[in-house]
Amino acid sequence: MKIALIAIGDELLNGRTLEKNGHWLAGFLYENGILLNDITIIRDDEEVLEETFKKSFECNDFTIVTGGLGPTLDDKTKSIIGKVFGGPLKESAKAIEIVSKQYENYSRQWHRESNSYHMIPEKVEPIFNPIGLAPGLKFVDSSREKYIFCAPGVPREFFGMFEKEIYPFIKSHSNFPNETLRQVTVRTRGVPEEEIFYRRCPGLWEKLSEFGQVASLPQIMGIDILVKFYANEEEYKKKRDSISAIMKSCAIAENIWSWEEGNLEEFVVKEATAKNLTIAFAESCTGGLTANRITNVSGASQVFLASYVTYANEAKINALKVLPKTIEEYGAVSIETAKEMAAGARKSAHSDIAISFTGIAGPGGGSKEKPVGTVAIGWSTKESNDAKLYHFKGDRELLKQRFSEAGLFKLLNLIRSSETN
Amino acid sequence: MKIALIAIGDELLNGRTLEKNGHWLAGFLYENGILLNDITIIRDDEEVLEETFKKSFECNDFTIVTGGLGPTLDDKTKSIIGKVFGGPLKESAKAIEIVSKQYENYSRQWHRESNSYHMIPEKVEPIFNPIGLAPGLKFVDSSREKYIFCAPGVPREFFGMFEKEIYPFIKSHSNFPNETLRQVTVRTRGVPEEEIFYRRCPGLWEKLSEFGQVASLPQIMGIDILVKFYANEEEYKKKRDSISAIMKSCAIAENIWSWEEGNLEEFVVKEATAKNLTIAFAESCTGGLTANRITNVSGASQVFLASYVTYANEAKINALKVLPKTIEEYGAVSIETAKEMAAGARKSAHSDIAISFTGIAGPGGGSKEKPVGTVAIGWSTKESNDAKLYHFKGDRELLKQRFSEAGLFKLLNLIRSSETN
Repeated sequence: MKIALIAIGDELLNGRTLEKNGHWLAGFLYENGILLNDITIIRDDEEVLEETFKKSFECNDFTIVTGGLGPTLDDKTKSIIGKVFGGPLKESAKAIEIVSKQYENYSRQWHRESNSYHMIPEKVEPIFNPIGLAPGLKFVDSSREKYIFCAPGVPREFFGMFEKEIYPFIKSHSNFPNETLRQVTVRTRGVPEEEIFYRRCPGLWEKLSEFGQVASLPQIMGIDILVKFYANEEEYKKKRDSISAIMKSCAIAENIWSWEEGNLEEFVVKEATAKNLTIAFAESCTGGLTANRITNVSGASQVFLASYVTYANEAKINALKVLPKTIEEYGAVSIETAKEMAAGARKSAHSDIAISFTGIAGPGGGSKEKPVGTVAIGWSTKESNDAKLYHFKGDRELLKQRFSEAGLFKLLNLIRSSETN
Repeated sequence: MKIALIAIGDELLNGRTLEKNGHWLAGFLYENGILLNDITIIRDDEEVLEETFKKSFECNDFTIVTGGLGPTLDDKTKSIIGKVFGGPLKESAKAIEIVSKQYENYSRQWHRESNSYHMIPEKVEPIFNPIGLAPGLKFVDSSREKYIFCAPGVPREFFGMFEKEIYPFIKSHSNFPNETLRQVTVRTRGVPEEEIFYRRCPGLWEKLSEFGQVASLPQIMGIDILVKFYANEEEYKKKRDSISAIMKSCAIAENIWSWEEGNLEEFVVKEATAKNLTIAFAESCTGGLTANRITNVSGASQVFLASYVTYANEAKINALKVLPKTIEEYGAVSIETAKEMAAGARKSAHSDIAISFTGIAGPGGGSKEKPVGTVAIGWSTKESNDAKLYHFKGDRELLKQRFSEAGLFKLLNLIRSSETN
C-alpha cells in the first residue's frame, strides 16, 4: 500500500515555518506498520498544486494533502481539488452541518461569507474537523480504490483530523498490511559510524542484513543501529534475540546503552521512577533546556523536583550557595564551580541526585584556555560529589543540546548504578 | 532561477528524524532573494532516487541533494548519481586530497576501505566538507547550465557545505536575481484569521495585494500577515510605509504587536537590553521552557539572571519563599501562588522584572475547577505584583508553549511600558 504526503505553503519554503506534519504522519503510520512513501513540500501556486495532485494520485493508493484550506485568498487547495477531481464548488448540506456544529462547540458565530466553508466541490465529501473550524476534503476513485484527503496545515488540526477521520478509511483499504513492520533498535555511544562497521566489527552489517533492512543513524551523541522487518510477534521475538546475541558478542558491546526507542529524558524519568529516585539540576549554560526536556515527559513530576537556572554568577551564589571565592579563583566554568552547583542544587531541592552544567555556549564568552564548547558537568549524590570537563563543537543551540545530553547521560548512569531507594 | 531540494533517508519517513535541512536552506535562500521551489523527502531506495534525481534535474536549474553520502551500505546517493549522471566510480586525486586534509584536521587516521570516500563518479567533482569527513558531489551540465549538488544529511555538515562550497556557484549563475525579494511583516495577536479579513477589515487583503503577494500565517498565539515583492531599497521603503499606513488605520491596528521578523524571545532580549532591564522567571508548569527560549538568544546574559524551575511545591517554598499556607489555601495553580512566585523570583535574583508560571500541562493533574490547560501567570516589578488566570487548549508540549508565550508577551508589555532604567 502506497501513501504520500503533500504539504502546501510558501511559508514552508521561505524558512519561516518548519513543516512538521510529515514527521508526525510518518511516525503514526510507521507505528501502524506502514512506511510513508514520500513527502513533497510545494508553494501556494495553482499550477504546481494541480500537477502535484495529479501525479501523486496516479502513483499512490492514498494522497494526504495538508495546508491551503483556510479562509484567506492564499488558500487554494479546495478550488484546485475541484478543478482536478471534484467539479465546481456547490453548497454542501453536510459541510453546513459539521461546520455549524464546530462553531457551536467553540461558542462562536459562523458568518458564511467569511470563509465559504459550506462550499465544497460537487464530487468531494467534507470531513469533520475535530480540533478546528475548516472542514477537510475527501475524494475517492472507487473503481481504482484511490483516495485523496485534504486536511488543515495547522499541526494540531492535522493530527486530530488524520487520526480520527482519515486513518479509519486507510485501515479499511484492501491493501492494508496484515503483518506488522517491526524494528530492533541498538543504541550506541562513543564510537563513530565507520569505526563500528569497518574497523571494530567488519561483517556486522552483512550479518544483521540477514534479519532485515539495516540502517545506521548518527544521533547527537552516538549511533543508533536499526534492523527492520515484517513479522508476527513470535518471529519478532526470535529475530530480536538473535540480533541481541550478535550485538552482545561484538566489539562494541560495551558501547550499547539502550535497546529501546525513546529519547534520553524518557529513559531518565522511567528509570528514576522505577528506583524511586528524585532529581534536581543546576543549569547555567544549558539555560533551562535540561529541565524543559525532562518536563516534556509526562510523569516527570514523580521524580523531578527543581532546576536552578542560575545564569548570573550572583544567582549561583544566592540560590546554590556557590562560594564567591570558588568563582573568583577557578572561574564560573570550572570543575570546582560545577561541583558546588551540584551540591547546592541537591541540598536546596532535597533530591537524591543533582546534575550541574556550567559552560560556554557561545558565540561570545570563549577564551584560549576555555574556548566556546567547554562545559563542566557536576554531580552530587549521597555517595559522591564531583565534576568533569568536556569540550564539544557546534553553534549555540547545538552546544546547549550536547551539554544537556552529556549531563543526562551522566544522570542515567548514576540512576542505573544506584541501589533501589 | 529554480532550485529544489531532495532529502533522502528512511529515517525521515518513519517518524524517527525530523527533516530540518530544507527549512534551513529555504530560509538561507530567501534571505538572498530566492524562493526554494520545492522539497521532496524520499526513501533510501535506488529506483526512487534515480527517478527523483532525473525529474528534478530536468525541472530545475539547481538540484540540491541531502543525505545518503555516509560510509554505510544504506548510503546510496553516490552510486546513483554515478549511474544517472556521472559514470562509474573511480579513484579521485582531488577527493583523496580533501578527505586526507579533514582527517588530519580531526587528528584521525583515514582507512580508505572504511568508507571509499576517495571513489567518485568519473564526471563528478568532489566537494570539500568543512564540518565533517564525507565529501560532497557536484555534477554540471554546462551546455544547459544545470547543476546537481549532493551534501551530507547531518544538518551542521549540510549547512556548512552549502554555505561555504555550494552557494558561491549558485550566486554566479546567470539567472541569479538582480532584485531582492523583500517582505513587509505585520504581526497581530488576539483576532482570528477570518475575523481580520472578513469581519473587521473587509477589503484589506485586496488592498495589500496591490503591493505584492499576501500571506496570512496563524502562529501559536496570533496571525502574522506578510506582503512579499521584488524591489530595490528605495521601492521597498516606499511600499513598507504605505502598507504601514494602511495597517495603522485599519480596525485591527491595536492588535499589531510587531513589524519585524524574529521570535518573541528575541524581542524580549533586544528590548530589555535597550532599556537596561534585568529579568528572572519562576517556572513550574513550563518546566524551564521559558528560560531555555530566552537563553537560545545570544546576548541573553545581558538581561537574563535566573529562572527558578520549582516543579515540586517544596521547591516553591524553599527557593521562592512562597508561603505553605498560600499553597494549602488556594492551591499551587492559583493567582495567589503565582503572585508570590513572581515576587520571590524577583527578590532572589535581584531582577527588575520577574514572571511566574504555575499551571496544569497535563495529561494528568486536571480537575473540574482547574482543568488541564489552566495557568496562572504572575509578574513582579518595582511598581506592581499581580497575576492572571488563563485557559488554553492543547497537548502537554503545546500547552507548555502557550503558557510560555503568554508569559513572554506579558513580559514584553512590561518592558515596553517601563521607563528606561
